[in-house]
Amino acid sequence: VTAAASAPIGVFDSGLGGLTVLRELLARLPNERFLYLGDTARLPYGSKSPETIRRYVEQNVDFLVKRGVKAVVVACNSASSALRPDDRWPVPVYEVIGPGTRAAVAATQSRRVAVFATRATVAGGAYAIRMRAAAPGITVVQEACPLLVPFVEEGMVDDPVTSEMVRRYMGGVLGGPGPEVDTLILGCTHYPLLEPLFRRLLGPGIALVDSGRSLSVEVAAEIAAGRLPAAPQGGPHPRVELLVTDVSDRTDELAARFLAPHRASPARLVDLG
Amino acid sequence: VTAAASAPIGVFDSGLGGLTVLRELLARLPNERFLYLGDTARLPYGSKSPETIRRYVEQNVDFLVKRGVKAVVVACNSASSALRPDDRWPVPVYEVIGPGTRAAVAATQSRRVAVFATRATVAGGAYAIRMRAAAPGITVVQEACPLLVPFVEEGMVDDPVTSEMVRRYMGGVLGGPGPEVDTLILGCTHYPLLEPLFRRLLGPGIALVDSGRSLSVEVAAEIAAGRLPAAPQGGPHPRVELLVTDVSDRTDELAARFLAPHRASPARLVDLG
Repeated sequence: VTAAASAPIGVFDSGLGGLTVLRELLARLPNERFLYLGDTARLPYGSKSPETIRRYVEQNVDFLVKRGVKAVVVACNSASSALRPDDRWPVPVYEVIGPGTRAAVAATQSRRVAVFATRATVAGGAYAIRMRAAAPGITVVQEACPLLVPFVEEGMVDDPVTSEMVRRYMGGVLGGPGPEVDTLILGCTHYPLLEPLFRRLLGPGIALVDSGRSLSVEVAAEIAAGRLPAAPQGGPHPRVELLVTDVSDRTDELAARFLAPHRASPARLVDLG
Repeated sequence: VTAAASAPIGVFDSGLGGLTVLRELLARLPNERFLYLGDTARLPYGSKSPETIRRYVEQNVDFLVKRGVKAVVVACNSASSALRPDDRWPVPVYEVIGPGTRAAVAATQSRRVAVFATRATVAGGAYAIRMRAAAPGITVVQEACPLLVPFVEEGMVDDPVTSEMVRRYMGGVLGGPGPEVDTLILGCTHYPLLEPLFRRLLGPGIALVDSGRSLSVEVAAEIAAGRLPAAPQGGPHPRVELLVTDVSDRTDELAARFLAPHRASPARLVDLG
């Protein structure tokens, strides 16, 4: 076993929403350790410009690489949108938009896919661009849902106010002329916490794609195929070290909610400089 | 007329909400020019820790002082909470909590005042601490309203979803045993855009205090009293220069909404780093 194999996998997000991705990784990779960075001092990314998000992404990757991670998972759609095909990073970097795209293309039969995401992800159009490249002729309808992150942060995952807003956002992309949407991508790592609410409002005819879950399946496949070294069995516990750039008295409560049923050590404050 | 007198007054906020304060300043100070800094790259402050907010406040004041302002207005309640009585700044610094406190103490007869604010402002308790110091025996009930800033940013200032959330927040502080609240402080610079909605829901028995408006009255009094040098008549136009740390395609639209009926030059991007 080399040092690299036993090194943790770095995971970052603008805040704690990316813990829903980490939850999926933990479920599929029982031997791996994870170093999670939540950039809570600059949260959210989803309302900011591509240039600003790109700068934050580079700082976060640098930080994790300096901490010795063997790979980086970008557990944030807005940050994933800021990656470029010609990026060369010192370790493998995995992002959520490719896996979400592949899962949606595999799921849709009507060839009409909806993407619910933050304003930044929708403006960048990364899902639409990549889905059309992967499956020409596919129709992608996007909807920016800027209030869903605040609702999730407030724990309002089963609330009539949240339902009302999701219904409005759905009105923008469902129905209308032409073939019906049969697949909806949850294009923000906060949204999986709203999956039961979406399920209830959408009914059984529409497939939900959780990009973070799709990503975790692909990372597990990378390790199984030996393209990323596997950690030895029986590593140290807890398996998650949680770092944040700003800490509040709600940090550990939110982390527990997003990561359940898994657990992390209490969040530690770090400075990205 | 000295150079200092014709220099602009600096105004800053975590984002564009502070433009509601600038709007009040413009209305009362027809000769003054203003340099507004919206720290949109790190917005919002209201959910962050006192240490992080303090760091941002110091960087913003430094930035404005280097640009030659003759005074700084902290047009943000969360940032105002981070100021300390023993701070010594190179120019006069005015904040919103003192003026809001004085206006509320003057307005209340039941001696029971409610404060609606961000989570950071409520956690710091600055309004409660200062109101009790100014008027012993006064009762202050605070309510953190974390969703109101997102609603205002989305332009949902006259929307049933926003009304429902305001009603919930009111339920936490109105009614109950003891004397009734007769004064409510809008303790966040985004909230004045919700003033008509608050008015409608509160009815006529409760006085609304807009801290930004109270601040602008006090700054105008400082100038009238000669404690801050007055600008000469007939200065350059437009009177507002708008700087932001992140720019999006919504920046100028939001700025126009918050500043109406006044106008600013198009926002320019600056780097505090």
